[in-house]
Amino acid sequence: MTDPLTSALLPAIEAELKRQVSRLDAPRTQPYHEMLTYHMGWTGEGAGPEAAGKRIRPLLVLLSAAAANPNETWEETLPAAAAVELLHNFSLIHDDIQDNSAKRRGRPTVWVKWGIPQAINAGDGLFVLSNLAITDLIAGHPAETVVRAAQILHNTSLELTRGQYLDISYEKRQDLGVQDYWPMISGKTAALLSGCCQIGALLGGADENTQEAYRSFGNYLGLAFQVQDDILGIWGDESLTGKSAASDLVEGKKSLPVLAGISKKGKFAQRWAEGPIKQEEVAEIAQLLASESAYASSHEAAKQMTDMALNSLREADPQGDAGQVLTELAARLLGRAA
Amino acid sequence: MTDPLTSALLPAIEAELKRQVSRLDAPRTQPYHEMLTYHMGWTGEGAGPEAAGKRIRPLLVLLSAAAANPNETWEETLPAAAAVELLHNFSLIHDDIQDNSAKRRGRPTVWVKWGIPQAINAGDGLFVLSNLAITDLIAGHPAETVVRAAQILHNTSLELTRGQYLDISYEKRQDLGVQDYWPMISGKTAALLSGCCQIGALLGGADENTQEAYRSFGNYLGLAFQVQDDILGIWGDESLTGKSAASDLVEGKKSLPVLAGISKKGKFAQRWAEGPIKQEEVAEIAQLLASESAYASSHEAAKQMTDMALNSLREADPQGDAGQVLTELAARLLGRAA
Repeated sequence: MTDPLTSALLPAIEAELKRQVSRLDAPRTQPYHEMLTYHMGWTGEGAGPEAAGKRIRPLLVLLSAAAANPNETWEETLPAAAAVELLHNFSLIHDDIQDNSAKRRGRPTVWVKWGIPQAINAGDGLFVLSNLAITDLIAGHPAETVVRAAQILHNTSLELTRGQYLDISYEKRQDLGVQDYWPMISGKTAALLSGCCQIGALLGGADENTQEAYRSFGNYLGLAFQVQDDILGIWGDESLTGKSAASDLVEGKKSLPVLAGISKKGKFAQRWAEGPIKQEEVAEIAQLLASESAYASSHEAAKQMTDMALNSLREADPQGDAGQVLTELAARLLGRAA
Repeated sequence: MTDPLTSALLPAIEAELKRQVSRLDAPRTQPYHEMLTYHMGWTGEGAGPEAAGKRIRPLLVLLSAAAANPNETWEETLPAAAAVELLHNFSLIHDDIQDNSAKRRGRPTVWVKWGIPQAINAGDGLFVLSNLAITDLIAGHPAETVVRAAQILHNTSLELTRGQYLDISYEKRQDLGVQDYWPMISGKTAALLSGCCQIGALLGGADENTQEAYRSFGNYLGLAFQVQDDILGIWGDESLTGKSAASDLVEGKKSLPVLAGISKKGKFAQRWAEGPIKQEEVAEIAQLLASESAYASSHEAAKQMTDMALNSLREADPQGDAGQVLTELAARLLGRAA
């Protein structure tokens, strides 16, 4: 991300996030504030850009706003950018408890460091800060627009919790198929990216149709990105993805290729039903899954979602520098050269 | 609660709550919806008014609004009433996980029935529904007022999480005293009652000073109520309170009398430091605590807070039937005849 616009936006996003989280920088609750600054990647062991993550969601808000209206002053959109990133991080803290995950971006998770009760509360705190951030838009936008942005944010959150409900409920189910995949990732991944682009377009002053095109772009971007991530989680190159390609199979993740394999009711489905896959089987099982066309069908799904994302983006017709950067960001997320 | 106004408000509150929660009554997420309707007291084993609770908080919103403006049509305030009750119930679901509480209003808690991961998500769901409910005010109020109401609600939530942080952190601390009590219950109990009255006054169209008087009334009402509840938790009459008067001592709750006893550094403090109090010691320890003036000092604190609540209410000058009912409700909560 070396283009001048992104280079200007990222520090502004980080400053706004810190400003929002500093609402909890108060006497008596310093350790509570510290849990949040640790999770956000600013303090504690291993703090730094790697721990903070890529801030894709706030970038999507700011770029969508600026691409919808090249005369927009993106400073006034910053509270919304912070709101979506705080919402995302709330969901990560709770997700780590729910999944019993000990690490996040290479560091111990909040519940590992401070225990489950405080981690639940720390997640709740980021959620509240997200709510407060969106109301800060009132400094630079009409109240009607602020209420509309809040409604989009909250509806996005509702979809997140629906996706999370499905994800947790799937753990115990043996009767899943490909048809169970899309509602889950629509909630868990696509809803928030979709909300980011829609809120950005709204704040940029786009008309209803254009807002809808941005929303649709974010939605398909999220779906395509997740499917691609699922493919890399089984057949990816570890040196490129930074995580063991084996891990998704060993962890029993209900990814698209796995659900495609289960739906096929062949040898993979049989092996999957027999219990957890061991590290030493991974290469063989990945091969088996590909031979039952799960690689091909997942790849086809990723391609379809990518095409739909790019179609929606063309319809949104993003303008100016921001439009160019948004298009490049999409291409990069979707693994294509711009 | 047999006055005609309360009799009209309670069913309207319940209907609005059901309408708000029904946002999750959708295909694929029926069991998720069911977790929420169970917790709200509408469905499942032991469903009914006892399981639902008293809906004090939404009543405070509606009564404050109507008492601030006798011409107010309280129907338009219902979404805010629902929002505070949903927020309260979100905090209860998470609190039960954090406290490892197996029962709530005589029924198994959500985490006991559906597990911790789903219970965290169910709490998050009620939180989101609270956020959405407050934006529903847009149907009957100017957008500026809706944003202001949302800000009050979210700031209230932030105080709730601060109080919760303190409460959890106190579990491991041995150096606590009376001075640690007030910030905790300000967040855990008073902030929400305070927010209810302030939002009500705002929606009733009260001026800033009157809103502040209502806010202050709710705050002291919450503090007085909590102190009284703490006193009953140690020296209460079980036949009146419905819970064992022993339980607070046995559970090790950091209530005001206990913190007063610890601050005294006498025999009670010595015994407390030695470890959990057993059921058979309860009468003796309660007696010891009273002899070290913890009963008298807690009673005095309750009296002070009650006086301040009633002073603030007089300043708010509530009007009409609603004003009368609000005054009676306060008197009842504070254990005084109106």
